[in-house]
Amino acid sequence: MAKELKELTKRAENYSQWYNDLVVKADLAEQSPVRGCMVIKPYGFAIWEKMQAQLDKMFKETGAQNAYFPLLIPKSFLSREAEHVEGFAKECAVVTHYRLRANEKEGGVEVDPAAKLEEELIIRPTSETIIWNTYKNWIHSYRDLPLMCNQWCNVMRWEMRTRPFLRTSEFLWQEGHTAHATCEEAVDEAKKMLKVYADFAEQWLAIPVVQGVKSETERFAGALDTYTIEAMMQDGKALQSGTSHFLGQNFAKSFDVTFLNKENKPEYVWATSWGVSTRLVGALIMTHSDDNGLVLPPKIAPLQVVIVPIFKGDEQLAALTAKLQPVIDELRQLGISVKFDDSDNKRPGFKFAEYELKGVPVRLAMGGRDLENNTIEIMRRDTLEKENVSFDGIVERIKNLLDDIQANIFKKALDFRNANIHECDNYEEFKEKVKDGGFFLCHWDGTTETEEKIKEDTQATIRCVPFMFEQTEGVDMVSGKPAKHRVLIARSY
Amino acid sequence: MAKELKELTKRAENYSQWYNDLVVKADLAEQSPVRGCMVIKPYGFAIWEKMQAQLDKMFKETGAQNAYFPLLIPKSFLSREAEHVEGFAKECAVVTHYRLRANEKEGGVEVDPAAKLEEELIIRPTSETIIWNTYKNWIHSYRDLPLMCNQWCNVMRWEMRTRPFLRTSEFLWQEGHTAHATCEEAVDEAKKMLKVYADFAEQWLAIPVVQGVKSETERFAGALDTYTIEAMMQDGKALQSGTSHFLGQNFAKSFDVTFLNKENKPEYVWATSWGVSTRLVGALIMTHSDDNGLVLPPKIAPLQVVIVPIFKGDEQLAALTAKLQPVIDELRQLGISVKFDDSDNKRPGFKFAEYELKGVPVRLAMGGRDLENNTIEIMRRDTLEKENVSFDGIVERIKNLLDDIQANIFKKALDFRNANIHECDNYEEFKEKVKDGGFFLCHWDGTTETEEKIKEDTQATIRCVPFMFEQTEGVDMVSGKPAKHRVLIARSY
Repeated sequence: MAKELKELTKRAENYSQWYNDLVVKADLAEQSPVRGCMVIKPYGFAIWEKMQAQLDKMFKETGAQNAYFPLLIPKSFLSREAEHVEGFAKECAVVTHYRLRANEKEGGVEVDPAAKLEEELIIRPTSETIIWNTYKNWIHSYRDLPLMCNQWCNVMRWEMRTRPFLRTSEFLWQEGHTAHATCEEAVDEAKKMLKVYADFAEQWLAIPVVQGVKSETERFAGALDTYTIEAMMQDGKALQSGTSHFLGQNFAKSFDVTFLNKENKPEYVWATSWGVSTRLVGALIMTHSDDNGLVLPPKIAPLQVVIVPIFKGDEQLAALTAKLQPVIDELRQLGISVKFDDSDNKRPGFKFAEYELKGVPVRLAMGGRDLENNTIEIMRRDTLEKENVSFDGIVERIKNLLDDIQANIFKKALDFRNANIHECDNYEEFKEKVKDGGFFLCHWDGTTETEEKIKEDTQATIRCVPFMFEQTEGVDMVSGKPAKHRVLIARSY
Repeated sequence: MAKELKELTKRAENYSQWYNDLVVKADLAEQSPVRGCMVIKPYGFAIWEKMQAQLDKMFKETGAQNAYFPLLIPKSFLSREAEHVEGFAKECAVVTHYRLRANEKEGGVEVDPAAKLEEELIIRPTSETIIWNTYKNWIHSYRDLPLMCNQWCNVMRWEMRTRPFLRTSEFLWQEGHTAHATCEEAVDEAKKMLKVYADFAEQWLAIPVVQGVKSETERFAGALDTYTIEAMMQDGKALQSGTSHFLGQNFAKSFDVTFLNKENKPEYVWATSWGVSTRLVGALIMTHSDDNGLVLPPKIAPLQVVIVPIFKGDEQLAALTAKLQPVIDELRQLGISVKFDDSDNKRPGFKFAEYELKGVPVRLAMGGRDLENNTIEIMRRDTLEKENVSFDGIVERIKNLLDDIQANIFKKALDFRNANIHECDNYEEFKEKVKDGGFFLCHWDGTTETEEKIKEDTQATIRCVPFMFEQTEGVDMVSGKPAKHRVLIARSY
């Protein structure tokens, strides 16, 4: 444990190293021996589980149902949708054999050349192809629509540069795949799911997001439109945190999925897909945490309250426990998760540092003097403010404090984000400013040329055409050509 | 939909075909284009989700935490534990390349020979190796023990003959992996988890199980002892439904996982692993269902109550809805899932057949005459008994009926199981009787020779040394040698 409490790299010193340190020291994840794949440790996984539970509820409220489709996709499926294969076939894990045999010469095992697959199988990088191949048999008439399935699963994309949670070769995610009778209904679904993601990010993760639509270059391979939520990290970089795609009839045509409409005429089905991943854990860490460790929004914290009794000897511990037990019981009855840490092999100061590092929102401490005075010490993790307060009414106070922390860290992130969004009409100025991070609202002429020039000059990309800002016509800051709207430009993860 | 309501194959006619039919017709799962892999459809997945939720709760109550380990395992890891590689390296999916490229000649994509992995990766058939390789860094002192992680994930074993849920190349499961300071503690953990599985099977799935320990031949590859729960299907065959393994120090030694004990001396860690899979869905179907379709225990049924109003015209529907809505609300408040099926594109008879097929435990129907008489028709799926009862107190009646159905189908399965367990001391008699299914309690001399002869002669195997029967010494029915106890022998899935 001691090693974890060593000081973190400071954000101001090296933001990237701070993040990597924190992921390890707070016991969230670690590198595995498999290139680009991480082990998600119990504390990190508990955060993901809380995200899953809430998202799953929200998906089901929209009428989506969970299902499960195969991990492996026949190679030929990827080629069916022309743009999709461009986007996903390149870097993927390929299964070519189905058996190992003893290696007589060197010991161990080796691939059995006799067990070569006729057609190679790809570990899913995303499941549109296998799912639309399946939907063909599920959809016959307009009565079978809409069809809305979601799956929680692992996917794999062979990434060259990986970072825990933000970009890993294998990651966990959910992918929703819906089929509709009309174009309008599919567009509405894609937008509705974007809103679900935005609501979840803001109300549960306390991460403010900009909703918008991607430029053509940044679209999902095979989509007609990709909607996105973009969050700002503390270094001013953007993190794409969830996407929802309007797929038109592309996959329906590639996999020949038609339905008989009310006039009994065949039509191709309209599609969407939408997903968020364990990347959200990275977003959560990078948005709120500080030089002391994690800061977690109470609604998503695996442990919301920790109580540390400060005692000498069993008798004093017994007295503190007797006093505190009813509070613990009451909090749990309110659905608040509480840990009573009466272990005697760590000093209180050590425990405090540990729970700070782990981002437990509220910490209580109570010692002999508190017992005499009917007081208790309460600390909120977000501001690190400590207060000695009356023991009476402590449950109500904790409950309110948790709400307050949730609201406060959202406000803090929102203020930071808003202070770092700049309108910019001058390219030289932009090039200078973008180095320090932040989101830039700039007029864009809509061409790929301009987009690529910006990326080449500054590494910044068009994150989206944002919905939240009033759009005015103007002049592209790079080309000087007319521009219909401002887009959001930033460097990103 | 119409196709699904076609008559099922009768169990008596062809039990195996009945099962395959039912899986498809009840919308549980279907074959995928990937050999041996199934698509789990929403209704089938909803059953699995209910199993997961309950098991997850039970695991956490024992102190286990969820985590996630990589899908891919370096080939060399499998060779570290000698018996483990024997058992699992043979039939597995091997990733050899990490990129595809455009196939210039034939179109489509092909494996890029330049992207060959230095060391092949195996899709996990089970995760002992990668997890114990990770535990090495997590375990240093006795204070780090016990360590109890569980993961819910997909695994892959290249099976030649597959059947939906019962045996598929890819399947979903959970695998618990625990590390302990002493042999005794590890054995206790393995036994405790077997009890968790048995309790879950009996109290939630209403499947009676025989708990016991496997013979050496049938042990998990790498285990010192494998505990099992064995259920009897309606054809008298056994289905191994969950296993818990005492792994001794085998994996600790293979992956060099030691801890400093209280005397500050290094010792190898003691291990267990335990798992159940989507196979339980197959067990559920095969144990309770009948020639009309699924029969589901209320505690695990995705939909517990369906209400079908029988109406002509909107006015009558409105009157029925007004009468029924308070009942629906009240049931939902009790946590009972209810569907009110007022769709007008299907006849009531069609709906009845559909919900029977899907195994909804309780069906209510109400028409104009019922409205006049303040009555309602109630049907229980397990016995197909219909009754016209007073509308007053209907909520309480439904609640009790659900409990009654849960108890009744367990009792029915238990009576069937008990009626088909036979003590047998004569090998000729055994060979004759075992053809018709059933569990046989026979004395066994403990040798692999006898075990193999029985298998060769009859296809039946030793399922376990059962805990539930008083053990008496005797004479092996095959070899005539002394036997310490009776074992459970059966043909199995």
